[in-house]
Amino acid sequence: MDKDSTGSMPCPAPFAVDSAAAGLSAVGSAAVDTAATDPSTADPSGASANISKEAPSFSPEDLKYMKAALKQAEKAIAIGEVPIGAVIVYDGKIIARGYNRRNTDKTTLAHAEIACIRKACKKIGDWRLEGCTLYCTLEPCQMCAGAIIQSRIDRVVIGTTSPKSGCGGTLLNILQNPDFNHQADVLYGVLREECTEILQRFFKDLRRRNKERKKMLRLQQAQISEHPVQIQQAQLSSQQPAPHEQEVIRQ
Amino acid sequence: MDKDSTGSMPCPAPFAVDSAAAGLSAVGSAAVDTAATDPSTADPSGASANISKEAPSFSPEDLKYMKAALKQAEKAIAIGEVPIGAVIVYDGKIIARGYNRRNTDKTTLAHAEIACIRKACKKIGDWRLEGCTLYCTLEPCQMCAGAIIQSRIDRVVIGTTSPKSGCGGTLLNILQNPDFNHQADVLYGVLREECTEILQRFFKDLRRRNKERKKMLRLQQAQISEHPVQIQQAQLSSQQPAPHEQEVIRQ
Repeated sequence: MDKDSTGSMPCPAPFAVDSAAAGLSAVGSAAVDTAATDPSTADPSGASANISKEAPSFSPEDLKYMKAALKQAEKAIAIGEVPIGAVIVYDGKIIARGYNRRNTDKTTLAHAEIACIRKACKKIGDWRLEGCTLYCTLEPCQMCAGAIIQSRIDRVVIGTTSPKSGCGGTLLNILQNPDFNHQADVLYGVLREECTEILQRFFKDLRRRNKERKKMLRLQQAQISEHPVQIQQAQLSSQQPAPHEQEVIRQ
Repeated sequence: MDKDSTGSMPCPAPFAVDSAAAGLSAVGSAAVDTAATDPSTADPSGASANISKEAPSFSPEDLKYMKAALKQAEKAIAIGEVPIGAVIVYDGKIIARGYNRRNTDKTTLAHAEIACIRKACKKIGDWRLEGCTLYCTLEPCQMCAGAIIQSRIDRVVIGTTSPKSGCGGTLLNILQNPDFNHQADVLYGVLREECTEILQRFFKDLRRRNKERKKMLRLQQAQISEHPVQIQQAQLSSQQPAPHEQEVIRQ
């Protein structure tokens, strides 16, 4: 019953689709930050009313821990995954780190935030993560936002927004729904430019590789009548994306 | 930032709190089914408009698989956990079973539905669970409903509703939000009476045990001046709930 037959990436998918549709790769990141990824422009229900507006400056701690989350996102890129990273901080220390491994591990539950929550519960020895702050490079999806509320994390610091699956105020505000028995404090925009750029870089590179592959396939198909079938097939298969890239493209 | 200082159970907590507040243990289960647990009476935003209304009769398959989910819920009771069970069916076969183990495993991610999704992904070898139906005895919470949408499960069959954390139409309709890139078909009320009863039985028994313990403690405290300190302490500690019961009470 998918609305979009091309499917979606984990939390960032929407971002990717949106940035492509809006031609964001052709504009500066400043434009991205204030338009397409700003939650206040994307929430039709006014659910984001309680979200903290972007502060003029952020604390050294918030910047430090968001950098750590970005480092996790870089690990995702290294294995061909959509770059999303997260860390959980308790009592001034990082107690859990995670990055998106959804295609690699072949499980829905391999989002960065879920990985962090699993590790933090193990570390603290409780399903309640009261007193914890979660830093994530991208606004959590419906599953991750729900897990944050279920684990009673006090505070969520978000790098950039996700216009098509963001549930920290963009499509829904699961993090601050007054009907639930817990609400988190939410701070947006810490290292927003860097968190946006890493996603743009990944998807720009992915589109470039896909374009090159399609071009090669077209060239080879045009030569079909000039080569024996066996050779053509061998050439075609050698141009297929690697398994993990096929997974990302399929989404 | 908890609204409710007593906290909540996993998905069923709200149910438990509500049933207690409404004195449901004193009324018949029929009353419970049509009033306190009916999602159409609890959704202020009208988000449940797309939910399938209770059918006059259910298919033999739906009844069979919900019975299997109830069997999982019984396993939760056996270890002192709030009884919630779930199964995932693919191609006419149960490919994953799960039950609530949140206090036992000390992790937020030990909800019945999440356990099922983890196992089903492993079985199918993909994070996409297209073609799957999830049967759960209680309406999914925000995390589980989000995981269902993220894993693209086609259909969700729910036993009874959760008035305080239900996100299948009661508080929110995460399962059928048109802004997301996937929506699930939802069927409510399969074996609703049995799914309600197992929760009522658990919480009724829990309240009875708590009441008895409090009574014993009061009696012992009244005798403090008549007994040596050591003996009193020994008596008091012998009346403490077992560790897993302390966890449930604390929620």
